[in-house]
Amino acid sequence: MVSDADSGYDCGFLDEVITDGRVAHAESVCEQYASDASVHPEQLPDAVAWPAATEEVAAVLSAADERGVPVTPRSGGSGLEGSAIPSAGGIVLSTAEIEHVEVSPDDLQATVGAGVVYDDLNERLAPHGLRFAPGISSGDVATIGGMVATNASGFNAVRYGETRDHIRRLEVVTADGRVVECGSEVVKTSAGYSLTDLFVGSEGTLGVVTEATLGLVGIPEHRRAALVTFPSRVDASRAVADAIGSALVPGAIEFIDATSLKVINAYREDVTFAERPTLLIELHANNSGIEEDLAFAKAICEDHGMRSWESAPDGELDEIWQARRDKYPATRAYRQEWDIALVGDVVVPISRYPEIVDAVSQASDDLDLVTACVGHAGDGNLHFTPLVDPDDEAMVERAHELNDRVVQRAIELGGSATGEHGVGIGKRKFMEAEHGQALDLMRSVKETFDPNGILNPGKVLPDA
Amino acid sequence: MVSDADSGYDCGFLDEVITDGRVAHAESVCEQYASDASVHPEQLPDAVAWPAATEEVAAVLSAADERGVPVTPRSGGSGLEGSAIPSAGGIVLSTAEIEHVEVSPDDLQATVGAGVVYDDLNERLAPHGLRFAPGISSGDVATIGGMVATNASGFNAVRYGETRDHIRRLEVVTADGRVVECGSEVVKTSAGYSLTDLFVGSEGTLGVVTEATLGLVGIPEHRRAALVTFPSRVDASRAVADAIGSALVPGAIEFIDATSLKVINAYREDVTFAERPTLLIELHANNSGIEEDLAFAKAICEDHGMRSWESAPDGELDEIWQARRDKYPATRAYRQEWDIALVGDVVVPISRYPEIVDAVSQASDDLDLVTACVGHAGDGNLHFTPLVDPDDEAMVERAHELNDRVVQRAIELGGSATGEHGVGIGKRKFMEAEHGQALDLMRSVKETFDPNGILNPGKVLPDA
Repeated sequence: MVSDADSGYDCGFLDEVITDGRVAHAESVCEQYASDASVHPEQLPDAVAWPAATEEVAAVLSAADERGVPVTPRSGGSGLEGSAIPSAGGIVLSTAEIEHVEVSPDDLQATVGAGVVYDDLNERLAPHGLRFAPGISSGDVATIGGMVATNASGFNAVRYGETRDHIRRLEVVTADGRVVECGSEVVKTSAGYSLTDLFVGSEGTLGVVTEATLGLVGIPEHRRAALVTFPSRVDASRAVADAIGSALVPGAIEFIDATSLKVINAYREDVTFAERPTLLIELHANNSGIEEDLAFAKAICEDHGMRSWESAPDGELDEIWQARRDKYPATRAYRQEWDIALVGDVVVPISRYPEIVDAVSQASDDLDLVTACVGHAGDGNLHFTPLVDPDDEAMVERAHELNDRVVQRAIELGGSATGEHGVGIGKRKFMEAEHGQALDLMRSVKETFDPNGILNPGKVLPDA
Repeated sequence: MVSDADSGYDCGFLDEVITDGRVAHAESVCEQYASDASVHPEQLPDAVAWPAATEEVAAVLSAADERGVPVTPRSGGSGLEGSAIPSAGGIVLSTAEIEHVEVSPDDLQATVGAGVVYDDLNERLAPHGLRFAPGISSGDVATIGGMVATNASGFNAVRYGETRDHIRRLEVVTADGRVVECGSEVVKTSAGYSLTDLFVGSEGTLGVVTEATLGLVGIPEHRRAALVTFPSRVDASRAVADAIGSALVPGAIEFIDATSLKVINAYREDVTFAERPTLLIELHANNSGIEEDLAFAKAICEDHGMRSWESAPDGELDEIWQARRDKYPATRAYRQEWDIALVGDVVVPISRYPEIVDAVSQASDDLDLVTACVGHAGDGNLHFTPLVDPDDEAMVERAHELNDRVVQRAIELGGSATGEHGVGIGKRKFMEAEHGQALDLMRSVKETFDPNGILNPGKVLPDA
């Protein structure tokens, strides 16, 4: 169904469907929507539309479906696997203007438009003592629509779960322009097939999510954190596996490798971190029992040869978190004119975390690369960023080879090609290895929901 | 596709597919598989098969699909909405013999066959300090296969979630006999469509689940519980809404109405409970902070006019729980020759809990019925059991009318027709009101996964 992107699609019909200038056909505008935050190939769309309401999304989809014009949904554009790149041309459908928020504090829930930015939502929720909890790194840009599309998560998923775990209800527009309500505003239900869960993580290939009702959690009264160093990355990752295996439920447990700390030290002038494998452990509680949990966490770290333990008092966690937050800017600034080639994202069973950390190290040695690792270790989720000279094509290619090797190893270890960034363009080639025959069922779902193949072509499912 | 059940299906082919006597065609055996624990009409199957392994399940389905013979999967048979009744005749496919268990304590997970009984699994997990946590009432009979099929949950879902929230991976046999692995043994993933979530709650209408990899939680070191009475059911349910709205995360929070306590007092000779609306609150923690949480819970109850507070020391909760556990046997024994007509199961947003409790009371008054209510109140889940003389047909009919009214009211309040029992036969007629246009998508999923309509016909989706 996907037409040759270079031929261009006639998208003049959009001006009938959306008024008030919220459609652009000019190349200068389209250029801004040809890429996302990933390294995947840019592709110019033929038009960009910013519908202001669900009915307009439905009108766009209905008209595009009749004409066989590809539609790539987009919200924050902060994706790292190319999910929002209009690979087949056609229309970029931005949900950024759909940004209503209605909070129901008594039900610990909020109903929000797809264009609402994660951090903005949490700012709106704070006066109620509530929070939408997945805890993503790009919260200043990423929107709820994109988070639902990729089943995003981050720092706090180890305690509170992924985006999926907080979705009670979705409003979705189907490929042919029907507006469908899925789920209910309840915390549990056994009433038939969970369409909400089918749309979560489908990256706009099955329908366009316009609104979500999200479950919220209370902001914890107490937060304690510690920065802990270890003799080796294997010791650090074994400490994580042991903590999780002991059923400790931290608010966050982050792994930061020595290479990451080296680039952070080079980046910052005011502080020097020990360049050793490090864990950042944060605990959440509503009572003073948090001190006992902190002591328990420390004892586990001691069992694994802990070299240093620096804990921050309640409410003063910023300095400790800075070590983690600086990682990407520091990596980008590491050597003049160097950059990161990609942000790796794999997840493995927690007991295999030492092995996947080791796989990155081994592949880096084999391929003569410097790779910095961080990760939401409590979930078995590892991120890795090979540092490269972007003008050195062979080096960039080796960085992609490293990514391939680590992803394949993650799948061999019983893990997944992506923990939180989604499949997009970059991880399609691994779906056969990860899903096997289940891929046939996924393809049949796609054909059922989008028979003309207009929704985000070239994403998630590999070509058959 | 569903044939006339009375005509009977030739199931002789089963003897070729399954050997060792694990097939029965005799009416005396089939009679035992004509019903489940519900009040829905019995239907004799033509044969019963007990495959011992996934390959045999695949062989049965493949052969049945070729011949258009209905297959109704069954495991514990403890369902309350008729999900396991072979409404269209044909084959009852019991997964009760598939009962392997492999525990991976380091990954807080277990891989188990569909026939494993919930309580047996938790007994196997206890030495590891772990637990499969949904906390169902029928745990001595219900199996993992049935729990996945209905997305079962119970007492502890308020803290730990439904069955769905613990499913990492499923092995499923499709209608045409393919064996498909869905999901991965990881705690999070963004790798494409969540087929696991589609199969959970589909009651065997999309495929037969043969094995599940379940996430586990640690058994809490400390448990405290309190039995609290209130002046009115509205006060009690407002206390629940307030506790949840304050982001207290109890291990369980159960509502027990005065009628239930009256029948329990009549049933038991050794103890007398105050016949007032009551909450059973249980807290879980791994540290001494549990005492602060208990004090917080008590303060909330005081805000809502609490009449009495009886708390049990750590580890001595049996007496307090007996008030809840006796409810069904006590109700059944209430008047000689009386019985319960059905077990109602609805769920509403927690802020609407007082209204749904009131709806049961109002309908009972209008219909001249005595109805006992209990519920997993922290989830907004209410169960209600009208007490009837089974020989009084008009009275039984009024009990069903009461159920209809309460379910309709729950849907009007933004809730769901079923919180944890599933749709089965009994809740099909409410699916149009609950799901609207989403029902069309569910039907298209069903047609895609089971084009010949052999899987559990007459369940979940209403006739179009």
